Amino acid sequence: MNPRFTLENVRVVLSHASHPGNIGATARAMKTMGLRSLFLVNPRSFPDRQAEIRAAGGWDILNNATVCSRLEEALSDTILAAAVTARPRMLSHEVFDARQGARELVASAVQYPVALVFGREASGLTSQEAGMCQIVVHIPSNPDYSSLNLASAVQVMAYEIRMALSEPPARLPEGGSQPATSSQIELLSRHLERVGVESGFIDPHEPKRFIARMRRLFARARLEEEEVGALRGFLSAAERRMQIRE
Amino acid sequence: MNPRFTLENVRVVLSHASHPGNIGATARAMKTMGLRSLFLVNPRSFPDRQAEIRAAGGWDILNNATVCSRLEEALSDTILAAAVTARPRMLSHEVFDARQGARELVASAVQYPVALVFGREASGLTSQEAGMCQIVVHIPSNPDYSSLNLASAVQVMAYEIRMALSEPPARLPEGGSQPATSSQIELLSRHLERVGVESGFIDPHEPKRFIARMRRLFARARLEEEEVGALRGFLSAAERRMQIRE
Repeated sequence: MNPRFTLENVRVVLSHASHPGNIGATARAMKTMGLRSLFLVNPRSFPDRQAEIRAAGGWDILNNATVCSRLEEALSDTILAAAVTARPRMLSHEVFDARQGARELVASAVQYPVALVFGREASGLTSQEAGMCQIVVHIPSNPDYSSLNLASAVQVMAYEIRMALSEPPARLPEGGSQPATSSQIELLSRHLERVGVESGFIDPHEPKRFIARMRRLFARARLEEEEVGALRGFLSAAERRMQIRE
Repeated sequence: MNPRFTLENVRVVLSHASHPGNIGATARAMKTMGLRSLFLVNPRSFPDRQAEIRAAGGWDILNNATVCSRLEEALSDTILAAAVTARPRMLSHEVFDARQGARELVASAVQYPVALVFGREASGLTSQEAGMCQIVVHIPSNPDYSSLNLASAVQVMAYEIRMALSEPPARLPEGGSQPATSSQIELLSRHLERVGVESGFIDPHEPKRFIARMRRLFARARLEEEEVGALRGFLSAAERRMQIRE
């Protein structure tokens, strides 16, 4: 295991950050723990002088940050994305505390890109955004006031990633099977929706409920690449068959 | 064990903080983890509007902060003070990482006040300040850039305190013996210095080296109140005897 490689595989994704200072402070927090890969989804202001000031020695991470317009882009090649929340509300996901969540991420990051996903300062992640993640990680906090500053939450998670890296691995990666990436699962979900609508099973005006349920199932199962391939093959065959019938 | 009582026994001491924003962010970080007791030694600007803004929901902690002019005052009734540093330089102290250090502090905070002591943003604690602490706690970090923001370092330590509280206690407090407070040890050190000078053992122009060594010894031993009493009794007797001889 190469710790440096593993740390580079753990990306931090900030979705719709409002305060440039928090983006800079996030870069600094990452740098202090050896994380390097920062993705910004629709930041309100970037680049920004305030971010540069707060980044201090993390300016290189700020300079190399990737800006995206959609969360899917930031996650496309990841095999595990963790929605970080102060309080776990989305009970449909597997929920870990910061320490256990960091161990889960590190176990995958030894080989593949993974993501820590943080939402807006005021309101956190939307349920749609959380739905694109496979697990939920919550930072244990005071039930009377659990609102960590965004960069402080990044600092705690980055610290736990570094601590997890110094522990013996909890489980060895399983041999042979390749985990599916976020974009492979995204394509599978859309394929499923299309076939569902074509077949008349899904109401085209209300496709969300069934697909949301399937996404949860995929997340829980930690789908493998070959399984995605098999499922899409099955869907394609059904699609062709339906077109012949028409 | 009452977790709330234990958390209230863990004070955060900021020595010579330069940026009011960091003081506010410290109050917020403390609040999110359930810590309540903030001591400010010679802050550059306090109270300050910038601190209030950054404190967010931690404004009550800011309002109730105790301002002192000397670190000794902030530590006077504590029985264990941890100098928090990014990198452990002061090898004469017992050094713990953030996790182990938090466990040490919580083990004592079940009964007595303890302190997490943070230094200036730019330069950290002076060796004199660190000398007033009994242990050193360092936050594991990137060796190429270990400079955590002050409030981020508070956030990590406060988080580890909360996590340590949820673990079974590492060791039970020992029965009977009462640990000495910081100010009892301070008085003992001064008494020792006075007697050392009076006896001619210490060069009055260069008293520091011997006393520094003795302070390290007291810190390592975690002196008890009765031991301090016995030592001071011994010193007083020697003092009286020397005065008779003159």
